[in-house]
Amino acid sequence: MSQFTPEPTDSASIATIRTLAADVVGKANSGHPGAPMGMAPVAHVLFSRFFNANPKSSKWFNRDRFVLSNGHACALQYILLHLLGYKLSMDDLKAFRQLDSLTPGHPEANHTDGIEVTTGPLGQGFANGVGLAMAQAHLGAVYNRENFDLINNYTYVFTGDGCLMEGVASEAASLAGHLQLGNLIVIYDDNHISIDGDTAVAFTENVEQRFLSYGWQVLHVNDGDSDLAGIYDAIAAARVETSKPTIIRLRTTIGYGSKQQGTHGVHGAPLKADDIQSLKSKFGFPADQTFYVPKETYDTYRAAALRGAQLESKWTSLLAKYGQAYPKEHAELTRRISGKLPEGWEKTLPVYKPADPAQASRKLSELVLTAITPSIPDLMGGSADLTGSNLTKVKGTVDFQPPSTGLGSYAGTYIRYGVREHGMGAIANGLHAYGGIVPFVATFMNFVSYAAGAVRLSALSKHQVIWVATHDSIGLGEDGPTHQPVETAIHLRAIPNLDFWRPADGNETSAAYLVALKSKETPSVLSLSRQNLPNLEGSSIDRAALGGYVLYEVANEDMTIVSSGSEVPIALEAASKLKAEGINVRLVSLPCWSVFDKQDEQYKLSVLRSGAPILSLEALSTAGWQKYSHEQYGLPAWGASGPYLKVYEKFGITGTNIAAVSKKVIAFYKQKGGEVVSPLVKAIKL
Amino acid sequence: MSQFTPEPTDSASIATIRTLAADVVGKANSGHPGAPMGMAPVAHVLFSRFFNANPKSSKWFNRDRFVLSNGHACALQYILLHLLGYKLSMDDLKAFRQLDSLTPGHPEANHTDGIEVTTGPLGQGFANGVGLAMAQAHLGAVYNRENFDLINNYTYVFTGDGCLMEGVASEAASLAGHLQLGNLIVIYDDNHISIDGDTAVAFTENVEQRFLSYGWQVLHVNDGDSDLAGIYDAIAAARVETSKPTIIRLRTTIGYGSKQQGTHGVHGAPLKADDIQSLKSKFGFPADQTFYVPKETYDTYRAAALRGAQLESKWTSLLAKYGQAYPKEHAELTRRISGKLPEGWEKTLPVYKPADPAQASRKLSELVLTAITPSIPDLMGGSADLTGSNLTKVKGTVDFQPPSTGLGSYAGTYIRYGVREHGMGAIANGLHAYGGIVPFVATFMNFVSYAAGAVRLSALSKHQVIWVATHDSIGLGEDGPTHQPVETAIHLRAIPNLDFWRPADGNETSAAYLVALKSKETPSVLSLSRQNLPNLEGSSIDRAALGGYVLYEVANEDMTIVSSGSEVPIALEAASKLKAEGINVRLVSLPCWSVFDKQDEQYKLSVLRSGAPILSLEALSTAGWQKYSHEQYGLPAWGASGPYLKVYEKFGITGTNIAAVSKKVIAFYKQKGGEVVSPLVKAIKL
Ligand SMILES: [Ca+2]
Ligand SMILES: [Ca+2]
Repeated sequence: MSQFTPEPTDSASIATIRTLAADVVGKANSGHPGAPMGMAPVAHVLFSRFFNANPKSSKWFNRDRFVLSNGHACALQYILLHLLGYKLSMDDLKAFRQLDSLTPGHPEANHTDGIEVTTGPLGQGFANGVGLAMAQAHLGAVYNRENFDLINNYTYVFTGDGCLMEGVASEAASLAGHLQLGNLIVIYDDNHISIDGDTAVAFTENVEQRFLSYGWQVLHVNDGDSDLAGIYDAIAAARVETSKPTIIRLRTTIGYGSKQQGTHGVHGAPLKADDIQSLKSKFGFPADQTFYVPKETYDTYRAAALRGAQLESKWTSLLAKYGQAYPKEHAELTRRISGKLPEGWEKTLPVYKPADPAQASRKLSELVLTAITPSIPDLMGGSADLTGSNLTKVKGTVDFQPPSTGLGSYAGTYIRYGVREHGMGAIANGLHAYGGIVPFVATFMNFVSYAAGAVRLSALSKHQVIWVATHDSIGLGEDGPTHQPVETAIHLRAIPNLDFWRPADGNETSAAYLVALKSKETPSVLSLSRQNLPNLEGSSIDRAALGGYVLYEVANEDMTIVSSGSEVPIALEAASKLKAEGINVRLVSLPCWSVFDKQDEQYKLSVLRSGAPILSLEALSTAGWQKYSHEQYGLPAWGASGPYLKVYEKFGITGTNIAAVSKKVIAFYKQKGGEVVSPLVKAIKL
Repeated sequence: MSQFTPEPTDSASIATIRTLAADVVGKANSGHPGAPMGMAPVAHVLFSRFFNANPKSSKWFNRDRFVLSNGHACALQYILLHLLGYKLSMDDLKAFRQLDSLTPGHPEANHTDGIEVTTGPLGQGFANGVGLAMAQAHLGAVYNRENFDLINNYTYVFTGDGCLMEGVASEAASLAGHLQLGNLIVIYDDNHISIDGDTAVAFTENVEQRFLSYGWQVLHVNDGDSDLAGIYDAIAAARVETSKPTIIRLRTTIGYGSKQQGTHGVHGAPLKADDIQSLKSKFGFPADQTFYVPKETYDTYRAAALRGAQLESKWTSLLAKYGQAYPKEHAELTRRISGKLPEGWEKTLPVYKPADPAQASRKLSELVLTAITPSIPDLMGGSADLTGSNLTKVKGTVDFQPPSTGLGSYAGTYIRYGVREHGMGAIANGLHAYGGIVPFVATFMNFVSYAAGAVRLSALSKHQVIWVATHDSIGLGEDGPTHQPVETAIHLRAIPNLDFWRPADGNETSAAYLVALKSKETPSVLSLSRQNLPNLEGSSIDRAALGGYVLYEVANEDMTIVSSGSEVPIALEAASKLKAEGINVRLVSLPCWSVFDKQDEQYKLSVLRSGAPILSLEALSTAGWQKYSHEQYGLPAWGASGPYLKVYEKFGITGTNIAAVSKKVIAFYKQKGGEVVSPLVKAIKL
């Protein structure tokens, strides 16, 4: 017996969503009407009956999270936000896909009120949803108390066939099942259509069975076009199941109501004008009126919004009472919600002197994590099955695991991601989007590339995710070229709003964490060595935090070497050999290009100054170093498998050879004559 | 009733593999002994009883293909290659993981005799195996005739837990099930251990059920450590099932025989010396002898090799008879096996004049494919569910589909990859590794990043895979920054042995295909526009095939603009505006950096010559352009959603603004004074 109570306004609401979707895409003459029209019934049932959020306070912490993983269907999401009363006007809907509008072609977090995560690149939203649900499970376990069920929201994800074909979603789904995320509810728009036509051409797996294999609850609704009671009951059943995530397979007709419904003709192109008119007539709407919203539809959604506002208000009272009962937890939770780190945590960062023993920067990273973890409970992270190599598990931290496994608890902060780099990156975006958590993730530098799709969205969406990327060059030695990154650094350096750090020693590693943790809207990748690195005379946290600085100064230099990470001590060795021959070489350490770029002009020109040639040195592709140097030394192509010192020698990255290269450079520029001007002196600044 | 016939030498052979693995890793003091020791029984049964290959002729076309997807276990593969008599000596085994050895840390195709594909980066080998099996199905369907079952080999893949957690493997597995690849046999080393310890920490899905959901046959062997008959029967049953791929879940003990067996202690570190001694004693081998191989083991493997040699010899006779019965097919097949393209295909490439209508380069790509497909049957490819946008399906081509679907046939050449970019990239590597096929794949440029893990392995392994990467900049317009690549070009340009082409018009698009198809050991990415591009005065296939050339020449220039793709006509517009003001700007089109880099010095210096400043222009990140220019104009960060001309205008990439920028550059260098030297004039060449 269904528990659904139909309302007389339901059909008008659904028709409103469908016709608005046609109008929004039609006016833009660009976009995807089919999925919004097909998913209108489930969207209506979810938002009118279940969804807990306050449109007038879109950051209320315990709101339900909604993710439109099939982000190309964003006309649907924008319409809902508008009807519910978020900061999105009818004019905004009319500006769909226009320059500088609040309604871009795919939903962008931190751009449009009410958008939790950026979606469109397929599979990402699904995995973000897993992260959002993990965050809820974690913070609930840490802060909820008897009679104070403060953090108990649901995460709802809409997904299409495309997302479910993507590996990133498979990875996240498998982990979500393992983690028994009971508050995660995925609604799968099973419309049998993707861009290439019928899904029969490429996607014939049994999706229900697949999700059962992951340990999910699997439900289905056979008539997603009109069976509102079935939709209602499925969502209700999903909410009741608390020990498993749920996927509801909803059989829908893409572009429902269009003359072309059920075909890929309605997937990614506007409906024709006469089709839109016929659609409106079919639903009993005025055929010639565009952007039509019946008053009862607004009323329905305003009622839903009011329910959310009342829930927030009750929650706020509960939080206040919690503050009396649990003042310490209350203070910490509210601080975390505000996004501020605890006062004084920076003081716990390790500081090094040159006499301190050489250590791998992956080890130095572990020392930082060990030092700061007690003072920053917000840190939550893990590795893609390389914990012992990435050195990311701080002693004493507990695994984030379902209690039933006996391996940890939801209050645990260490995440066992499995060998799922892309899923990990996208999940971390979800963890950060939830709030209250600073996520870190870890793998070998080379396999950050597996997660490139998620990394660029961290940067675009301003998610503070910290990548601990170890084994960052030929310095990993024996594993060989399959594991030795060459192109990864320049790839990541070219991503806007991403700080790529390659620290050279202990102080620089501490500096990388300092800036990464202070940069609340910027992801950071920490590129760390497998091999030991000496602590350098002249390095300090403050200096390295500028992104680049003079590590070894000389007057009237014959040349400057600019380097990063594990090659800085090699450059120093070269400089010292040359000094013995009376050749003056100064040394600049440039651990982070993007942070250095932000320093004032005068400082930058004092570091990479005119007057003598600048040679860059890195055991990677030289691509991009031309921005900071006149000459570049690095790998001509791939690395090689062997003990790492031999591999360095093979490629001439040794103090002796770099000294020889330096002499060549110096001679070349002497012969060339003329002033040697800093590469930073430019006509154009973008 | 098992069909397995035990041999008295079986246990010694298995013990040999296990102890050799311990010795090989022990001597290197680096590597992974656990999986080789655990998988020794299945490896022995497979290679002694089933595997059809001729170690003395490792490229025999109808050989069974073997892929070690868990490539870190490569000690196992090297040992087998040695025992079977491939070009891998005991000394090579002793040089495991040493510099310039034939036994690098992970198996590398085109480096070691008998290695089909490069593995180690997890999940890749699994997906390569799907590609190998697709190639067999396709070429078999095209060339086999009654009584001439010429192409019918099996593809065997060993995989561990790690590969099965990776999304790339999930994508490929789902497609393999859809494609009903009956000759694909995967053996899953279910040892319950990964680097983080017990798989219970992160990998608790029901793998058997998952593969059933994909449409695979699923078998299992509960005692993979010693039940040789069970292993034999499972492989035999897998071979019998011709309408589905098979996965055999083999429960094994990692590091079987070691004191630490069954723990992650034997996963990635050498066994201790006393453990190795005890292991040998346990198996009845001399405890103090290293690299010990009993004569009967060599005899066993030589017998297997002989069986393979006899099979090849029979096959060669069959092929000769086929030549008499089907001379045309024989000629084509043997040409394809040799890797040569048909004579004269280049003449079919479209050539354009400036008066020809403007077209999007994705459309120009379609015209090339349409023109060359009839003369190059070797072309086999498809899109990750963007066929209508990538324009990759040539009219009249048939889908590669199982006949039972009614949607195509195995003889079809057009592959419906579904939304599975990473799987697609890795499958294409497998298609190329098989031989006889030139694979192309397609998606939006932005989503090549999803496949980065496979793309770098194309380049490392020298797989000629052609990426048709459309919608390559802000020129895609409304879809917005989530879909607009910014960092992708420099990422791909920094990958060694990969040609990244960004053609500006019709002739340049033809040139990109010309070089891509002639480069038998190099993958190419063709970066193509969504928007229309005019055909340029001065472009030609020959000139563009040099990677870079002077498109518009003037004497005594005030400046040169170097540009690529859709920004070349904008640069031309700027030059023309400036000419009207008496300012002389010449224009260089640089569609492919890596190909240009290979031209002789004199040519390159004539293109990017000294004497005046050079400004680069591209609607992407400027990273890397400093190598070819003094000044750079491009995107300062992300793109934006809107009609594309408005987006170009927002970022100042218009003829008018570039003319203004050019004047600024010219003035700056006039004021700076001194000679302006080409950025190509360098002290160091790597
Ligand atoms: Ca669909
Ligand atoms: Ca394993």
